[in-house]
Amino acid sequence: MDTLKVALIQMPVVTDKAANLQRAEAALRQAAAEGAQLAVLPEMWNTPYDTAVFADYAEDTEGASCTLLRRVARETGMVVVGGSIAEKDAQDRIYNTCFVYDESGALLAFHRKRHLFDIDVPGGQYFKESDVLTSGASSTTFSALGWTFGVGICFDMRFPEQAADMCAAGAECLIYPAAFNPTTGPMHWSLLLRARAMDAQAWTLACAPARRLDSGYTSWAHSMVVNPWATIEHDLGTEAGLRLARIDKSSLQAVRTQIPLREARR
Amino acid sequence: MDTLKVALIQMPVVTDKAANLQRAEAALRQAAAEGAQLAVLPEMWNTPYDTAVFADYAEDTEGASCTLLRRVARETGMVVVGGSIAEKDAQDRIYNTCFVYDESGALLAFHRKRHLFDIDVPGGQYFKESDVLTSGASSTTFSALGWTFGVGICFDMRFPEQAADMCAAGAECLIYPAAFNPTTGPMHWSLLLRARAMDAQAWTLACAPARRLDSGYTSWAHSMVVNPWATIEHDLGTEAGLRLARIDKSSLQAVRTQIPLREARR
Repeated sequence: MDTLKVALIQMPVVTDKAANLQRAEAALRQAAAEGAQLAVLPEMWNTPYDTAVFADYAEDTEGASCTLLRRVARETGMVVVGGSIAEKDAQDRIYNTCFVYDESGALLAFHRKRHLFDIDVPGGQYFKESDVLTSGASSTTFSALGWTFGVGICFDMRFPEQAADMCAAGAECLIYPAAFNPTTGPMHWSLLLRARAMDAQAWTLACAPARRLDSGYTSWAHSMVVNPWATIEHDLGTEAGLRLARIDKSSLQAVRTQIPLREARR
Repeated sequence: MDTLKVALIQMPVVTDKAANLQRAEAALRQAAAEGAQLAVLPEMWNTPYDTAVFADYAEDTEGASCTLLRRVARETGMVVVGGSIAEKDAQDRIYNTCFVYDESGALLAFHRKRHLFDIDVPGGQYFKESDVLTSGASSTTFSALGWTFGVGICFDMRFPEQAADMCAAGAECLIYPAAFNPTTGPMHWSLLLRARAMDAQAWTLACAPARRLDSGYTSWAHSMVVNPWATIEHDLGTEAGLRLARIDKSSLQAVRTQIPLREARR
């Protein structure tokens, strides 16, 4: 399909897990009703972004969150890129994982956040995902709806070599569930997304939780669609919202012909 | 040295080679007089940017241009990053080459543009450096004044893996002599330079010819200094000009501590 209709779901994330699941399901169903063929949820959409609670919220693919994602994918016939959740594996290791379900509800791919966000500035910010999370070991791409997608999670977007891996595997659209904060957001969020789109000559989607000033971690929000020319086509701002966007292959072909990076690469 | 004073020389480039050499020498001497420890010239500062004439303007290291660069470097005690010139080697191959001379006038490094700019859009723009130029085979870094620098030329900046090579070799400041045009300039020039600075967490300097609407190739100009946080500190606009700027290691250390990409890289 040359053109796809995709949806970004910039939802608020609260401590009540059942409320998060209910909100995600309603938004996914609304996206499908508006014609979305693929929908994206934010990073850690079912749990507060807090290393102290990830273990409590963690699930495997038989848990309530993945069960919801595959049921809604099947019932709506839509590809569901499940943002990320805290995943617990058989050895009780916890990952920050994006599960992707196809239109029939089958698991199409999963990506475990490869680059964990660890920061420890003396007298400044402290946040160490690696206190409780295990990092993934690979870059992830999947094919659906006649397109090849790449998926990375949040801090992963800071590593151009991971985007390059996804491109080498044919990615035409990079998807980053993410949750930047009000320090790094204004500094680097749109710059990173535009840079990845420019270097990959690919569509780039980012989906973040809505801004909530009463939560322990304030999301920068600003879910975004960037086209392969590196122009921002949609910016959802800070409020909760659902946005439908069109992505197309003709603009991919145009930029790749007019700025022939692939042929010039050495 | 924690802090360096560097100069960008955004000079007009004309068809009269002797005039280009005279202008470059005057600007380099002025930069030194103002206290610059390192100065950067634009891409192809001694020749029109035109594949049809590169062979006529090409020189080896014994030609008038390199002789000028090393003489001025020695006489002023300043590191001279000689933008680029058309270089002819012993086999009559022509390269787009940056020669770097140290404070004693000794050749410190040279970089041959690795990614040639070839574009051929049916009914649109045609420009093929590879019609006459041979591409370089490596990424280039050099040490001077207690710093490690990386140097790439123009289209090279579109390849993040080349910047990554320079970083892996320790680059703290990336230098790109370049000459974008009024099509790609507004679209990607500052985005590329900010992206490279952000990903490398390094100072990034770009030096371009001044804008001349009467020349065959119109330079976007906008020579720039971007700091390691990806903020533009200087933008020379389109007019001819010399700009002194300070770069420091303390901001490198700050960003590398606060956003610890090196530790998180996998």
